[in-house]
Amino acid sequence: MDYKITPRAEDYSRWYNDVIMAAQLADYAPVKGCMVIRPNGFALWENMQRALDDMFKATGHQNAYFPLLIPESFLKKEAEHVEGFAPECAMVTHGGGKKLEEPLVIRPTSETIIWSMYKNWIMSYRDLPLLINQWCNVIRWEMRTRLFLRTTEFLWQEGHTAHATAEEAEAEARRMLGVYTTFAEDWMAMPVIAGVKTEKEKFAGAVRTYTIEAMMQDKRALQAGTSHNLGQNFARAFDVTFLDDKGTRDFVWATSWGVSTRLIGALIMTHSDDRGFVLPPKLAPTQVVIVPIYRKEAERTAVLKAAARLRVELKERLRVHLDDRDQYTPGYKFHDWEQKGVPLRLELGPRDLQNEQVVLVRRDTGAKQTAPQAGLADACAALLDDIQQALYDRALTLRRENSFTVSSYDELKARIDEPGGFFWAYWNGATEDEVRLQEETKATIRCLPFEADESPLKDSLEGTCLLTGAPTSQRVVIAKGY
Amino acid sequence: MDYKITPRAEDYSRWYNDVIMAAQLADYAPVKGCMVIRPNGFALWENMQRALDDMFKATGHQNAYFPLLIPESFLKKEAEHVEGFAPECAMVTHGGGKKLEEPLVIRPTSETIIWSMYKNWIMSYRDLPLLINQWCNVIRWEMRTRLFLRTTEFLWQEGHTAHATAEEAEAEARRMLGVYTTFAEDWMAMPVIAGVKTEKEKFAGAVRTYTIEAMMQDKRALQAGTSHNLGQNFARAFDVTFLDDKGTRDFVWATSWGVSTRLIGALIMTHSDDRGFVLPPKLAPTQVVIVPIYRKEAERTAVLKAAARLRVELKERLRVHLDDRDQYTPGYKFHDWEQKGVPLRLELGPRDLQNEQVVLVRRDTGAKQTAPQAGLADACAALLDDIQQALYDRALTLRRENSFTVSSYDELKARIDEPGGFFWAYWNGATEDEVRLQEETKATIRCLPFEADESPLKDSLEGTCLLTGAPTSQRVVIAKGY
Repeated sequence: MDYKITPRAEDYSRWYNDVIMAAQLADYAPVKGCMVIRPNGFALWENMQRALDDMFKATGHQNAYFPLLIPESFLKKEAEHVEGFAPECAMVTHGGGKKLEEPLVIRPTSETIIWSMYKNWIMSYRDLPLLINQWCNVIRWEMRTRLFLRTTEFLWQEGHTAHATAEEAEAEARRMLGVYTTFAEDWMAMPVIAGVKTEKEKFAGAVRTYTIEAMMQDKRALQAGTSHNLGQNFARAFDVTFLDDKGTRDFVWATSWGVSTRLIGALIMTHSDDRGFVLPPKLAPTQVVIVPIYRKEAERTAVLKAAARLRVELKERLRVHLDDRDQYTPGYKFHDWEQKGVPLRLELGPRDLQNEQVVLVRRDTGAKQTAPQAGLADACAALLDDIQQALYDRALTLRRENSFTVSSYDELKARIDEPGGFFWAYWNGATEDEVRLQEETKATIRCLPFEADESPLKDSLEGTCLLTGAPTSQRVVIAKGY
Repeated sequence: MDYKITPRAEDYSRWYNDVIMAAQLADYAPVKGCMVIRPNGFALWENMQRALDDMFKATGHQNAYFPLLIPESFLKKEAEHVEGFAPECAMVTHGGGKKLEEPLVIRPTSETIIWSMYKNWIMSYRDLPLLINQWCNVIRWEMRTRLFLRTTEFLWQEGHTAHATAEEAEAEARRMLGVYTTFAEDWMAMPVIAGVKTEKEKFAGAVRTYTIEAMMQDKRALQAGTSHNLGQNFARAFDVTFLDDKGTRDFVWATSWGVSTRLIGALIMTHSDDRGFVLPPKLAPTQVVIVPIYRKEAERTAVLKAAARLRVELKERLRVHLDDRDQYTPGYKFHDWEQKGVPLRLELGPRDLQNEQVVLVRRDTGAKQTAPQAGLADACAALLDDIQQALYDRALTLRRENSFTVSSYDELKARIDEPGGFFWAYWNGATEDEVRLQEETKATIRCLPFEADESPLKDSLEGTCLLTGAPTSQRVVIAKGY
């Protein structure tokens, strides 16, 4: 597939779509706002799922499946929750040719249906903690959609846990944000800032929302995962109580947490370039592609034979593909696999056979090197590790170079569009101040970061609020977001 | 969980529900006809998915994801398809607080949305074959539902392939039925009869439907998986053509094939008994459960230490769980794990420590044996293989003992209720004869089996049609179904 990709500098938004189309990650569906995840995109999602699912299971969680359809009345049981989600709901009004007595909502998230079941499953402290996750599709009726980043239907996982104490729920919410941080940084090679959302930005129905925020190449922030301490809000709404070990009855404490196919959008915008998609090796469905080079028939036989042997050798440790398509030239194949983001290309021609070597080309830097055929798996594995680290380092450098301190609101307004970036500031404003900030700058408070070690504010413990001027020790990160 | 299970002889249908509740496989959802798949049920489904998915990928298929919502007009493009599915559809009429211009159908199956996309993806023979599968949820509005067997929402996989020739499509449909046969027999330990559905029973929109049919313990038939040769029907409906290597344009040839969470219902009814669920070892989320036995504190420490050591040893090769809950007696635990269907129980008490042995108890037969602690993993693995084979053999014996030849319609009518079973017969009737058969006997033609080697009809090549009396070589299997 030879697809022309618009350069980032020309039109960032078109570049993003072009990368997706060229790599055949997704396509537009006939229903407005919906997408088809094509095999290349889905194979990536499967790798993401496996890595996350292993971490969920290692932290004691089990998977389950709850229904797609939720009675409309359930959503209304938690006041903030219905206010947040009702405007985005898709409604099923007819089934089996008849009008339904009560309309059903297609889940926008599953707290309500899950807590209606937990009521039957939780009796005493012996049933706690209950640590359940589900992988599923959800629907939120969005006005403006973009492939992966914001679609009417998306795939995600949602964890829903129940605990005997407030402290355990809080620890769980923090633990799962830690899992997301590890996944973003170690697997996606995407540095994130972990922190707390403001009251205004928290999940509808939560006591507190934790988030990880990443900087995209256009210096905007993307919320990559959230985890919520729900307190006793849903337990109260669905009357879920338990007997503790002293025989006292209390409402159960809850968390929920989720990441979605949006992460694929984040991955694209963190690493890809004007030549197309760039995949971090740890998540790449194909880590090494072998492109054989030959002209004459005699060369073809010898090169393909050696290529097949190397493929078998590499396959022991790496995800490798041999592109033996006869109808395409090597040049076409180079281009094709570049657009698809495969981290490492292995070229093998007649002269390489003679010299018992191969040519290795990195997708991230384009750097070319020869390597002996002996010990090739080790060399490829080491190079893939390098690429993984280099992608992370590059993204971290971008964020550092575009993170600034602002000490006045005028300064923020002057710089939020140009140069743009992450703006660290002191803040103690109220929700109405935050609304004003957003209206006037189109930026939002991304989070109150846990750590300021690497921030421009790391050495100062206190300052004055950007907007109100009051002294405060509360730091925030402000940026335009996705 | 101590749950009273109704014996099969008393009420087969209640027994089935009791097994599910006792093993905590699923629960009823608040929306009529929907279910919640609980962690024990979902862990089993994950194992089934993994085994099937590996086989799909080994046969060249890739996973993708298509949208949940389908424009109503799409369904109407294939005449038989809409007739079959429209009465079962759930309709989304409102989204984001507004009435939609065109109602959307929640997918009951995805042929229409997928072929609308294939139109954009398939240009020439180079794009073929296109071999795609998706794992997803579907909704079919059912009047009478039963956990796993027939639910309004269910989980399944649906393969959708596109081919350049009729022969390739036919070969694919047969190949995937072969995969289902292997899965049913080798993994589920459930013998099946593979064959073709009659015109009346085929999939709405197919040229030909293949099926695997299994006998449940109440001697009814359950359709466990189907694969369809769709001919050019969907390609015509969605105008999907391709240029062949001679430059001629033709419609693409198609197949689809699927299995669902219904297989969990089949598994339950094939192997379980009056004490609860029985899991085939190859699919069991836990294959071996270790129950430590002790009274005094000194015993406790020594036994738990040895149990932990055995657990680590077995974990290398088997899925093993150590039940070290202190608040329950060994007797309670035996019962608990029996109800949950774990294939092998390992008991370990103070005397076993002295003798350097363990006690092994099979879930399928209840047989008890001692085994030396040295080489225990080998012994357990061998025993699990035995259990897998024994479950298959027992199910096959049940089917053989309850398969009969009938040569007249009166004979069928006299025996279909008592003794019941699978009735082999010659048949050349038309669809109206089949309708009559179903109305009068409540039984259906399950399939025209590929092989009659093990059937009561194996030695005769020709006979006369059960209903019309005309001579024919066409054999069928008739049974009451699920």
